[in-house]
Amino acid sequence: MEQKLFDSRSVSASEMVCLGRTCPNPISKYQDGVKILRQFLSYRGVLLKASYLTSRTSQKTMNSVNQDEFAVVNGSSQIIKANGASSSPFTRERIVMDAFEDEYEGVVIKPEKLPPNPNTFASILRSSLSHWKRKGKKGVWLKLPIELSELVPVAVKEGFRYHHAEPGYVMLTYWIPEGPCMLPANASHQVGVGGFVINEKNEVLVVQEKHCTPAFAGLWKLPTGFILESEEIFTGAVREVKEETGIDTEFVEVIAFRHVHHVAFGKSDLFFICMLRPLSTQIIVDDMEIQAAKWMPLVEFVEQPLIQGDNMFKKIIDICIARLGKSYCGLSVHQVVSMFDGRSSSLYYNVVDTKDSNCLGN
Amino acid sequence: MEQKLFDSRSVSASEMVCLGRTCPNPISKYQDGVKILRQFLSYRGVLLKASYLTSRTSQKTMNSVNQDEFAVVNGSSQIIKANGASSSPFTRERIVMDAFEDEYEGVVIKPEKLPPNPNTFASILRSSLSHWKRKGKKGVWLKLPIELSELVPVAVKEGFRYHHAEPGYVMLTYWIPEGPCMLPANASHQVGVGGFVINEKNEVLVVQEKHCTPAFAGLWKLPTGFILESEEIFTGAVREVKEETGIDTEFVEVIAFRHVHHVAFGKSDLFFICMLRPLSTQIIVDDMEIQAAKWMPLVEFVEQPLIQGDNMFKKIIDICIARLGKSYCGLSVHQVVSMFDGRSSSLYYNVVDTKDSNCLGN
Repeated sequence: MEQKLFDSRSVSASEMVCLGRTCPNPISKYQDGVKILRQFLSYRGVLLKASYLTSRTSQKTMNSVNQDEFAVVNGSSQIIKANGASSSPFTRERIVMDAFEDEYEGVVIKPEKLPPNPNTFASILRSSLSHWKRKGKKGVWLKLPIELSELVPVAVKEGFRYHHAEPGYVMLTYWIPEGPCMLPANASHQVGVGGFVINEKNEVLVVQEKHCTPAFAGLWKLPTGFILESEEIFTGAVREVKEETGIDTEFVEVIAFRHVHHVAFGKSDLFFICMLRPLSTQIIVDDMEIQAAKWMPLVEFVEQPLIQGDNMFKKIIDICIARLGKSYCGLSVHQVVSMFDGRSSSLYYNVVDTKDSNCLGN
Repeated sequence: MEQKLFDSRSVSASEMVCLGRTCPNPISKYQDGVKILRQFLSYRGVLLKASYLTSRTSQKTMNSVNQDEFAVVNGSSQIIKANGASSSPFTRERIVMDAFEDEYEGVVIKPEKLPPNPNTFASILRSSLSHWKRKGKKGVWLKLPIELSELVPVAVKEGFRYHHAEPGYVMLTYWIPEGPCMLPANASHQVGVGGFVINEKNEVLVVQEKHCTPAFAGLWKLPTGFILESEEIFTGAVREVKEETGIDTEFVEVIAFRHVHHVAFGKSDLFFICMLRPLSTQIIVDDMEIQAAKWMPLVEFVEQPLIQGDNMFKKIIDICIARLGKSYCGLSVHQVVSMFDGRSSSLYYNVVDTKDSNCLGN
């Protein structure tokens, strides 16, 4: 099977390895026919910019960079040069994986160009690594779709380590230089939200969960949950309350947040306590997870022994109550667009010194 | 090689699959000789509690559950029952992976008990899956250390999918029932910090980065960076400033934070802008990443065209300036211990109505 080692078609943003403080839009600059992926804030460590070819970029760009190094191997194992001329089988052509280069001497192997045969893959990977070492390259990124799981042990045997995985692929990396690997890690935090919903009668919306440790049996708590992939904190809180209790709400602000480490899979956890304004009253319980839900007088909620007996619970509730008394300033959310990424992001900050302020201070 | 299919030694917390809102301490309750891992707040989805055997729990617990199903296979391929009695080779014994059970019909396969031979693994995995299906099990967790990467394609072929990976292992999962997989996802966010440091002369500490997009060439910005694994926001901000500029600071508060999606590896990003009080004045630049650093008059910093021309930058700086004027309330950090996890975590909230308040409101 003819194996082309380079391709001029465009590659989706999801193929890009994007590092640094933010990478909201994969395209920020078009330069010399090659679109450059950039961060607008750097971070300590390696700032990786992956350059890639678009459909408007001819093979010429790639050829001009690597022509003497790339070769195409056809089904008959004859080595053919990129320009179509065949070479003597005795000519030593270097076989190199089809890959992107970045400006930090990194290499991003193209997953769509991987040879599925483990032996072929092993051979090409080995020669590619030698080539990249000679070229002074540093980090190598190898994304293996789950359909090519047979290549995983091959890559590991060559010295690759796991970086991260999602259901459909595993990403492996190889750090060429001596010394510690400078490639950045993957996501480190799970994020959850809790909704503090209080009505005009000074009753707080609470739930009892179906599944909880016996130590918490009988505890009435705020509705809580993880936000979904790419979900906003301010919509996630509203969603969780709706799902668990059937109550419609609107987001007011982030009152406080908690940060804890060494939770699921050794990662960290950020939990945002959100003030929500109720828009309905009728409770409909999600009986998959929730045993019961109700509007409970605030005083009764606070005075539960399990709340009073735990510093964390008590502190969080005290903060929520302070917010009710207007002697507290939470962080309200605002959508702001940056010209550098061209997209809207959510900025949570205090609005104090205006007529709309939730915070009157003292 | 004799393969024991159960083991009564204790298993480290890192072996545990821990789901739900928080899981700070793997041990929260000792019950019937079996330590139970629990969350104290549930979340929407499957609340997984993995139960495991400790050194004080005899094989009896496991035997009483599964005695008729577990068997030990020795080097000679003879099937031997758990109680030591041999059975006729014609007796049909079911071979099941050594694993923990949890109360949500989930199974956590013990990674230290995996047969390294791919063929043996395939056979036992297949029979185990059949067994767990018959038992009505739901999620199966399979952690494969990198040394056993040859088992990855075997598991994938049996229907496992990737869940997540760290440098030394890949976690795969198998959802047995019909319908969508209810197992929770891994970490979804990267977290970074930026330091707003201003001195008595109303000069802000700024840096110019060595590597940045040409569009940002010449921009003086706040020091920023990712927090490290298990690092606190309040220490990470201080560390980043120190590393990039040599300036010592102390954390004051979180002024605001930004939330954006679809960044590195398709994950989301939380960026916390932190107010820091300077404790030194002499700048020493980290020349690996930083081109230059200096104390810049605040007005000059704000009036940079790149700041004025971008809504996001401008808004963030406006917020920082508001904080200086005391017409703003940030979130200060407090260590609080919960009796349910026995550990301290960081709670960031507003301190308004006290003499120590940073916020005077209006």
